[in-house]
Amino acid sequence: MRYELYYWPSIQGRGEFVRLALEEAAADYVDVVSQSGARGGVPALLRFLEGRAIEHQPFAPPFLKAGRLVIGQTANILFYLGGRHGLAPETETGRLWTHQLQLTIADLVQEVHDTHHPISTNLYYEDQRLEARRRAHDFVRTRAPKYLGYFDKMLARGKKGASYIAGPQLTYADLSLFQMIEGLRYAFPRAMTRIERKCSRVVELHDRIAARPRIAAYLASNRRPPFNEEGIFRHYKELDV
Amino acid sequence: MRYELYYWPSIQGRGEFVRLALEEAAADYVDVVSQSGARGGVPALLRFLEGRAIEHQPFAPPFLKAGRLVIGQTANILFYLGGRHGLAPETETGRLWTHQLQLTIADLVQEVHDTHHPISTNLYYEDQRLEARRRAHDFVRTRAPKYLGYFDKMLARGKKGASYIAGPQLTYADLSLFQMIEGLRYAFPRAMTRIERKCSRVVELHDRIAARPRIAAYLASNRRPPFNEEGIFRHYKELDV
Repeated sequence: MRYELYYWPSIQGRGEFVRLALEEAAADYVDVVSQSGARGGVPALLRFLEGRAIEHQPFAPPFLKAGRLVIGQTANILFYLGGRHGLAPETETGRLWTHQLQLTIADLVQEVHDTHHPISTNLYYEDQRLEARRRAHDFVRTRAPKYLGYFDKMLARGKKGASYIAGPQLTYADLSLFQMIEGLRYAFPRAMTRIERKCSRVVELHDRIAARPRIAAYLASNRRPPFNEEGIFRHYKELDV
Repeated sequence: MRYELYYWPSIQGRGEFVRLALEEAAADYVDVVSQSGARGGVPALLRFLEGRAIEHQPFAPPFLKAGRLVIGQTANILFYLGGRHGLAPETETGRLWTHQLQLTIADLVQEVHDTHHPISTNLYYEDQRLEARRRAHDFVRTRAPKYLGYFDKMLARGKKGASYIAGPQLTYADLSLFQMIEGLRYAFPRAMTRIERKCSRVVELHDRIAARPRIAAYLASNRRPPFNEEGIFRHYKELDV
């Protein structure tokens, strides 16, 4: 079975958390919208969002088609993939803990998004710049350090050199944490030099994930969309304080 | 085994979504912080958040202690409880779909929260009123109708009179959708008279849930905290446009 991933073209966004899991798992998948060239795949995506001929209509991308199953919500997709591809613990306790961490990462993703869209997703960034500045200031000063400090503390509990965020084994949550650091560095390079000093274990985990052969190969490929100012992680100099 | 629910005292907040599931399941549970009187239970909650003597430290309340297991993140707790108390389908497909809907409800909960805290959770509402007005306006005009319209459409797929949000069977997602309508009516009574006209199936589901004997008994009890301006759903007249 070949998975079909549906996400907006040309951006990493939330789809990237799923892509990283598929790549690390060496899963057989096609990125339907991106790989169908130009924006040609968008109509296929919209057909799902409009619920035509589909029972479990997703509210928003990304969603994954796995045979007849259509799964939406990033953390839900990862929960599904994790269990099938050795990217989650075998035990129920371990799976709940991994999922809990992923949902906390998802909360952080939403807060990153809202640094540039604090008022409305229906407005351009330029129409909410003043509010964005205020929100981003709070984000880099308090929220990002709080979340990353928490993840750092969780990593401190493992045995030195062999620990992953959910325990002794690599999970999808590690891949997502890698992406979080990648994204935050792109969006807030100045603030991150300061923040990273207080979450060295998360940074070290990021480096270990980046060096994994399949992840390294993926990052070097043209399957990885570049960061830009249309995704979740956007670099606006005035927000990087 | 008696479950222990940990959440901030005196507010419904995110804890309420868990309480409703525990009540409908007639589960044996204690609301540790609320029931220990005054704010006396808060230190017990903080011990968990500070990670003392606990392996799987939650980032934030609510969290549920189930024997030795400590589970955080509202949707994750409901996923766990749903499987144990007949509040989720038996099949994997059904469980993923229910969870997907719950995560979409969770996204909406966050958007409700941000109508009164668009800039920072570290500031009082009064310090972000202007921004709140702008965000709330967008919320009641576009976001709430979009989400509730989606849920209404999902309900339209079931057989008339017997359908729940995830299919033919009651799930925790129905209880959460009930709470969403309750909360939105409290926060935005004026806007909701307008919005509800376009999601009559969600309103009808709300009424059916409210009439369930265990839910009705719970709502009439003093275990149900009243809505107030410290929770997720807050009524500020100037935001109800």
